[in-house]
Amino acid sequence: MTESAVPARASSAPVPAEAPFDVEADVVVVGGGGGGLPAALFARWLGDEVVLLEKAPELGGTAKKAAFWYWIPNNAQMRDLGIPDAEEDFLRYVARLSRPQHYDPDSPTFGMNEWEFALCRAIYESASPAAELLRERDALPYRHCRDVPDYWSELPEDKAPTGRVLVPEGARESMSDGGEVGIRTMSAAAERDGVDVRTGHRVQRLVTAGGAVVGVEATTDADRTVRVRARKAVIFATGGFTHDRELRENFLSQPVYGGCAAITNEGDFVRIASSVGAQLRNMNHAWMCPIPLEKAIARRPDMVGMFSVAGDSMIFVDKHGRRVVNEKLPYNELSQEFFRWDPLTGEFPNLVLIQVWDQRSQDGSASDEYGRLIVPDGVDDAHVIRGDTLEELSAAIADRLARYRANTGGLTLGDDFAANLRAAVDRFNGFAERGVDEDFHRGERAVQQLFNGLVDESDGRENPTMFPISGEGPYYAALVTGGTLDTKGGPKTTPDGQVVDDLDRPIPGLYGVGNCVASASARAYWAGGATLGPIIAFAYRAANAAHAEAVKEASPEPATA
Amino acid sequence: MTESAVPARASSAPVPAEAPFDVEADVVVVGGGGGGLPAALFARWLGDEVVLLEKAPELGGTAKKAAFWYWIPNNAQMRDLGIPDAEEDFLRYVARLSRPQHYDPDSPTFGMNEWEFALCRAIYESASPAAELLRERDALPYRHCRDVPDYWSELPEDKAPTGRVLVPEGARESMSDGGEVGIRTMSAAAERDGVDVRTGHRVQRLVTAGGAVVGVEATTDADRTVRVRARKAVIFATGGFTHDRELRENFLSQPVYGGCAAITNEGDFVRIASSVGAQLRNMNHAWMCPIPLEKAIARRPDMVGMFSVAGDSMIFVDKHGRRVVNEKLPYNELSQEFFRWDPLTGEFPNLVLIQVWDQRSQDGSASDEYGRLIVPDGVDDAHVIRGDTLEELSAAIADRLARYRANTGGLTLGDDFAANLRAAVDRFNGFAERGVDEDFHRGERAVQQLFNGLVDESDGRENPTMFPISGEGPYYAALVTGGTLDTKGGPKTTPDGQVVDDLDRPIPGLYGVGNCVASASARAYWAGGATLGPIIAFAYRAANAAHAEAVKEASPEPATA
Repeated sequence: MTESAVPARASSAPVPAEAPFDVEADVVVVGGGGGGLPAALFARWLGDEVVLLEKAPELGGTAKKAAFWYWIPNNAQMRDLGIPDAEEDFLRYVARLSRPQHYDPDSPTFGMNEWEFALCRAIYESASPAAELLRERDALPYRHCRDVPDYWSELPEDKAPTGRVLVPEGARESMSDGGEVGIRTMSAAAERDGVDVRTGHRVQRLVTAGGAVVGVEATTDADRTVRVRARKAVIFATGGFTHDRELRENFLSQPVYGGCAAITNEGDFVRIASSVGAQLRNMNHAWMCPIPLEKAIARRPDMVGMFSVAGDSMIFVDKHGRRVVNEKLPYNELSQEFFRWDPLTGEFPNLVLIQVWDQRSQDGSASDEYGRLIVPDGVDDAHVIRGDTLEELSAAIADRLARYRANTGGLTLGDDFAANLRAAVDRFNGFAERGVDEDFHRGERAVQQLFNGLVDESDGRENPTMFPISGEGPYYAALVTGGTLDTKGGPKTTPDGQVVDDLDRPIPGLYGVGNCVASASARAYWAGGATLGPIIAFAYRAANAAHAEAVKEASPEPATA
Repeated sequence: MTESAVPARASSAPVPAEAPFDVEADVVVVGGGGGGLPAALFARWLGDEVVLLEKAPELGGTAKKAAFWYWIPNNAQMRDLGIPDAEEDFLRYVARLSRPQHYDPDSPTFGMNEWEFALCRAIYESASPAAELLRERDALPYRHCRDVPDYWSELPEDKAPTGRVLVPEGARESMSDGGEVGIRTMSAAAERDGVDVRTGHRVQRLVTAGGAVVGVEATTDADRTVRVRARKAVIFATGGFTHDRELRENFLSQPVYGGCAAITNEGDFVRIASSVGAQLRNMNHAWMCPIPLEKAIARRPDMVGMFSVAGDSMIFVDKHGRRVVNEKLPYNELSQEFFRWDPLTGEFPNLVLIQVWDQRSQDGSASDEYGRLIVPDGVDDAHVIRGDTLEELSAAIADRLARYRANTGGLTLGDDFAANLRAAVDRFNGFAERGVDEDFHRGERAVQQLFNGLVDESDGRENPTMFPISGEGPYYAALVTGGTLDTKGGPKTTPDGQVVDDLDRPIPGLYGVGNCVASASARAYWAGGATLGPIIAFAYRAANAAHAEAVKEASPEPATA
């Protein structure tokens, strides 16, 4: 899908409910991805008439590109297996990671503010009931990933280090197609149960009456304006602002080049909700992942974040050929390493790093899953740089980087690159032989081994994340930077997903769930599925709260749908 | 002044111009600090009736606490002295620093976006005329700091490395009272020239009519609501959001503990302008400076940022007693070093650093200026920790840190602190003897020597920023973290300071200047005075644009002032 396939953005200023409506429903859901589909289903199952408006030509959003792990604390499988996951323990763990500088085990909120604490309690309370309801209604059958660890499973605050992750049933063993499976099953349930799904509808603004939200105005791909009345409420689930450069650069803590969210995630709800007095929160943070520099600059809609950096005989080096990072850090942490600031030179020296690997990793670790850059024959490998020797490889990397000088602040390979690369390989090889990375501790934590990807395991080692890089070519390389899976800031909501005004008063009829609203996770990526698990919980809560809202008057009387 | 002296915040939702006004003027200026006073003067000198509303009991804002350097490219003194400062060179320099990752010498905008480029051109065009007019009208006589270098004077893009800084005439030699002088002279000019100044007025919201801003509603310190009509325009200059913890934590790139902005800088304009559809920009960045941890936690209104870290026999160490930073980095850069994230331990290991010095620095570098922590007898020294030996000092530091565990995520001194501190002192002493800091390059750049502060110069060294720390006590220490001078995000404006809506259309009658609106500097602190120089330029442009606005109808007919 190209960007031109969706209607252009117009003014987000709200309009009064004066003109007639074209369509009406009890609940209008905006966005048909990992937040919108469950919200629509939950609302429908409560007996509400539901219209779902999706900007793109098809459903799925970012979730369709994802593995669709969903992190469900104290889930039914854990309870069945007798794995304890008490609320207090869950709250300690998320507080420790979300606001480490405020974490206080003796505080009633563990150092979170009241709003964050209330949202985290809502996740604990509702994630499992939501997941079970989706499973019972055959919208999202799952399998339990008993052994997948949280991303910070070694912390003393993690009392349930494994067992919280579910994945759509039927996803392949590697789980990389979980999103396709989950979107397919939820879409089928939406059709089966009578959700009125309309793709190619870009919601531009709210329709308001008497201080309440009573509907939306959308532009269709045929450039028609459609006014949709929401008798009870509108629930937005339109994703973050990964693909709006101006929002990214003016809000995010790191100057990322973009990310692997659905290309339609342009921050629509930031503008639409701001126009009715919403407060923006957590705008500085994102779910982060490394991304291939070249696809990011090309704004490729098919780009996938590198959730798992494959290869054992493989390292990342900087423009001077120096190894500067633990390549096996979990993706959210690894991607932040690209944005270290050098206060003496006034630059981001790690803005682009170079992944280097040998024939062993090419043979043993190639994969077309999880955005990996070591790809097998037959897969698009335009990003791969080759050389028979490290010197040839270095020259080829210099040439490739030169193409992107206008995009990288003039980033140029240092004259010392080849020599330093050779030294970096030698030092790494020593670590690999001993199984201990004295510089960056590669492979020492469970999550680093979880995401090690395919490697040739024939050599049997304690630390399977490292193997000496060959003294003989050919060698391979690719350019990597940090990006977002998606952003996680937006309007502040109640624990029921209701958007609040500047004095924290709920705005009648306006809800948001998912990456389009403010997450209480602050900077943290608690675990795999810490995106979709809470999103499903809030979709459930928002649908229930919307169901309980009074029917709102919209004058003049709406036309019949 | 305490926070309770100002009226509480109420709803920022705009109100229609239906009730009568209590006061009216052509131009209403909100905020009486370094942006509001010049804006009011410029407007008055154009012949407009001006009302200035200040929330605090007195004028001055953050500027009054500052040295009030103002950075004026191509200023009259440079022209007189024949120091060239061409517009293109200025723009290259600011582009190189503001968006280093996009800097492109071959781009027409040098890699900035069109908005940033236009604002930077406006600074170049108007800063000098504005400064000269203030001088001519005897509102802000200045002296030229011929030899003060830009903070990145060594960059090849800086073609005018010295000469752009002015300071209020009459400020003492060290310039630390520049703000008091500048606020005094501008306040006197405002009184002399008939600006209607009203302190103790907290503007809560805008009054609108037909899509235009036609006035404001304020709450007084006597809890009265005052409606003020602005026939032509309202100009906000209310400062940033340093003292609103929720805004700080949800927008800034770094989790600072606060800062040294006026205690009334609570982000009022973020809320007020958002309520009429403004776009927020540059919300992730701040003018940063190190601050004393204990005063920040106590929210002391008199806290001053540590713009100059004095002392030569002095180092900063982390909780393990390791030296981790160049202590003489310019303040904006130094303060960011506190927020390095450790992706393995999940913490900010440098969140609090410990400044350590000996009797030599106590004797030779004590000062009560620029927020320095080495203070002379008779000055509040509650923050100073003492020990006769490094071991005694270490124990005292551990005790002090224990007081703040609930504020620092449980930060505790490592058991290895004293031993590592001794090793750090030994290593530093070797560097000091040779005059070369092999680890962090202390004193190698001009700006580091500029801010070296008082030191005992009797020993004559090439690198006056370092001297061996004594082998004999007593020793001293203090706790330091990173903070803000003030934030620099807020509503997006035109180059004339006019606030724009979500489609970049100017909102009639609404202007903002200074730290309450979005700066085009992104992350950069170009030079000393890069705050107030551009602020004065935009005050000048906003006053001229406001003067040219049509008189707006406000129904019903306003009461006479």
